[in-house]
Amino acid sequence: KTSFKIAVLPGDGIGPEVVNESTKILNAIGEVFNYTFEFTYGLMGAEAIFKTGNPLPEETLQICKEADAVLFGAIGDPSFDHNPDAKVRPEQGLLKLRKELGLFANIRPLKTYSSLIDKSPLKKEIIEGADIQIFRELVSGIYFGEKFTDEEAGYAYDICKYYRDEIAPIVHMAFQEAQKRRKKLTLIDKANVLDTSRLWRKVCKEIAQEYPDVELDFMFVDNAAMQLILNPKQFDVIVTENMFGDIISDEASVIGGSIGLLPSASIGNENALFEPIHGSYPQAKGKGIANPVASVLSTAMMLDYLGLGQAAEKLRQSVEYAIENKYVTMDLNAEQHYSTGEVGSFIADYI
Amino acid sequence: KTSFKIAVLPGDGIGPEVVNESTKILNAIGEVFNYTFEFTYGLMGAEAIFKTGNPLPEETLQICKEADAVLFGAIGDPSFDHNPDAKVRPEQGLLKLRKELGLFANIRPLKTYSSLIDKSPLKKEIIEGADIQIFRELVSGIYFGEKFTDEEAGYAYDICKYYRDEIAPIVHMAFQEAQKRRKKLTLIDKANVLDTSRLWRKVCKEIAQEYPDVELDFMFVDNAAMQLILNPKQFDVIVTENMFGDIISDEASVIGGSIGLLPSASIGNENALFEPIHGSYPQAKGKGIANPVASVLSTAMMLDYLGLGQAAEKLRQSVEYAIENKYVTMDLNAEQHYSTGEVGSFIADYI
Ligand SMILES: CC(C)[C@H](C(=O)O)[C@@H](O)C(=O)O
Ligand SMILES: CC(C)[C@H](C(=O)O)[C@@H](O)C(=O)O
Repeated sequence: KTSFKIAVLPGDGIGPEVVNESTKILNAIGEVFNYTFEFTYGLMGAEAIFKTGNPLPEETLQICKEADAVLFGAIGDPSFDHNPDAKVRPEQGLLKLRKELGLFANIRPLKTYSSLIDKSPLKKEIIEGADIQIFRELVSGIYFGEKFTDEEAGYAYDICKYYRDEIAPIVHMAFQEAQKRRKKLTLIDKANVLDTSRLWRKVCKEIAQEYPDVELDFMFVDNAAMQLILNPKQFDVIVTENMFGDIISDEASVIGGSIGLLPSASIGNENALFEPIHGSYPQAKGKGIANPVASVLSTAMMLDYLGLGQAAEKLRQSVEYAIENKYVTMDLNAEQHYSTGEVGSFIADYI
Repeated sequence: KTSFKIAVLPGDGIGPEVVNESTKILNAIGEVFNYTFEFTYGLMGAEAIFKTGNPLPEETLQICKEADAVLFGAIGDPSFDHNPDAKVRPEQGLLKLRKELGLFANIRPLKTYSSLIDKSPLKKEIIEGADIQIFRELVSGIYFGEKFTDEEAGYAYDICKYYRDEIAPIVHMAFQEAQKRRKKLTLIDKANVLDTSRLWRKVCKEIAQEYPDVELDFMFVDNAAMQLILNPKQFDVIVTENMFGDIISDEASVIGGSIGLLPSASIGNENALFEPIHGSYPQAKGKGIANPVASVLSTAMMLDYLGLGQAAEKLRQSVEYAIENKYVTMDLNAEQHYSTGEVGSFIADYI
């Protein structure tokens, strides 16, 4: 297969700017490697609410379902964040898209770049060499559980529920990844308090039998929040439920000092979506200062997913070349910096 | 009032050792300031399970209810952590004690010590001068909600529920503390997804009317996990629900570089409990290497609570004197260090 349908959802804030560099670069890759990428654009997030009233219009969902992969920018808008009463919110679009496409595993690699190590808030000796892969369950748990508010009686609740079948697939994925790496898997949970966490522990222990070469250990989420800062090098692959994954993977994303560089993949049985870890960053919108690298590296994860490993490798090399040669945006080098478009074009040209 | 009944629950691991220094020091304070502290000891945690089968024996609960304040060490034992099927667990004792005593607010001050700033995993310029006070709701939310496991059907759930009445008291407390400090209060929640978080936001906004001199802002928990590392100085007082508080306050506890120094208070309408933030640290048990300072500073919080502000101040000064003069345990100075008991006696003598 040499021709691919890509659904492109630029979304809100700096989303459109960074995604634009990714499509630019995909075109360059197409030329060099003789692939065709056909882009179909869809509305999503606050942008979609403003234009259609719906954060995930039916048409967008269709485009995604028919595509080989989805390239996604970011969502979120301050006008919704400051209004707890808003019934329609950009986040609902993303949550619904994940659910509809069955994207049960959110994968975030955390690597450090030696030329950027001094950007980390952590001391060099603590962070240098850390290399973690986080698997976050993405379509179940408390974010998708039943929710209810009774204004009169003055209470609200959210239910966190997990079935074995919702736990097992991502645990298998994480074990398989650990086998390719340093063979250590850590489950993060709160099994000393929560029933769902105890179920996660059980399922992990059972599945561990099938991967005798991988060492499985367990860590309470409160302790994990500390250990990530104290000694991030102790981790290889992490697997965890939805909400813990949200918190822990965001915490992990800043310790390397370069959240603007971190990609993510959300994988299901039939679909996959690729997005930078950074959010919509509305303050930077339209200024040409957003760092496109996270989106570009998400594109590299997409190429891997599409079976285009060689192109993915080439793309990663190009990004590293740009970074090592300080062809970077303002966030990485205040003295001499380039615009979003310049960095994207530099990478595209190098390919 | 010059005579006080103190319930002492040493608990597990290094708990007994550090609490022992606290009572030693309270005796010294009693002599100097002419107070009487009457100690009544109770079993709690794994220790209590081994001896009575119950992590919180009825007798212990009674002792606590009759006391003016509770001094607590730590609980937790590896034999339970590694057994997800254990029906009786040390943590249940602590959770039940919090609930029974109505300790709805867990308060953790985070301060940095200039002589210890190089112990922080964060770079000096990021952490130096950070001064945060965290208010964690402690007796509701998902840790206390209905839990259920259906082995047959292969699922489990945990319910996070909040009533307005469970939110308002701690929010008032946090606003009042902010008034005495830099007048900034941050609510940490996940209001873009959870109903309970939206209820927290509403209640906070309403109560804010009564504290017009305090600036209230909101932060999503995933972002907060990042901001604590990127820029801890932006926080003054933080208020949050039980589980987010568990994670965020533990994360905050390590950024100063000295979790062995951090105290906490758990306050209710009629009772209060004081405990170090560090856990039972079973590996260090009985070795005389545990740092007693967190327990001692918890004791200072207890003195404040009992209305003995002058004694509390004197105790804090003594601790600072010990630290500045490097009269510390191994964790703070590997080259020259003193035992748990030596550090405790040094502080007691200084008083
Ligand atoms: C926007 C929000 C619903 C989302 C989440 O929490 O899942 C985001 O924080 C993320 O991590 O992708
Ligand atoms: C032991 C456990 C139940 C407890 C909690 O999570 O509340 C502990 O982690 C704490 O923070 O005091």
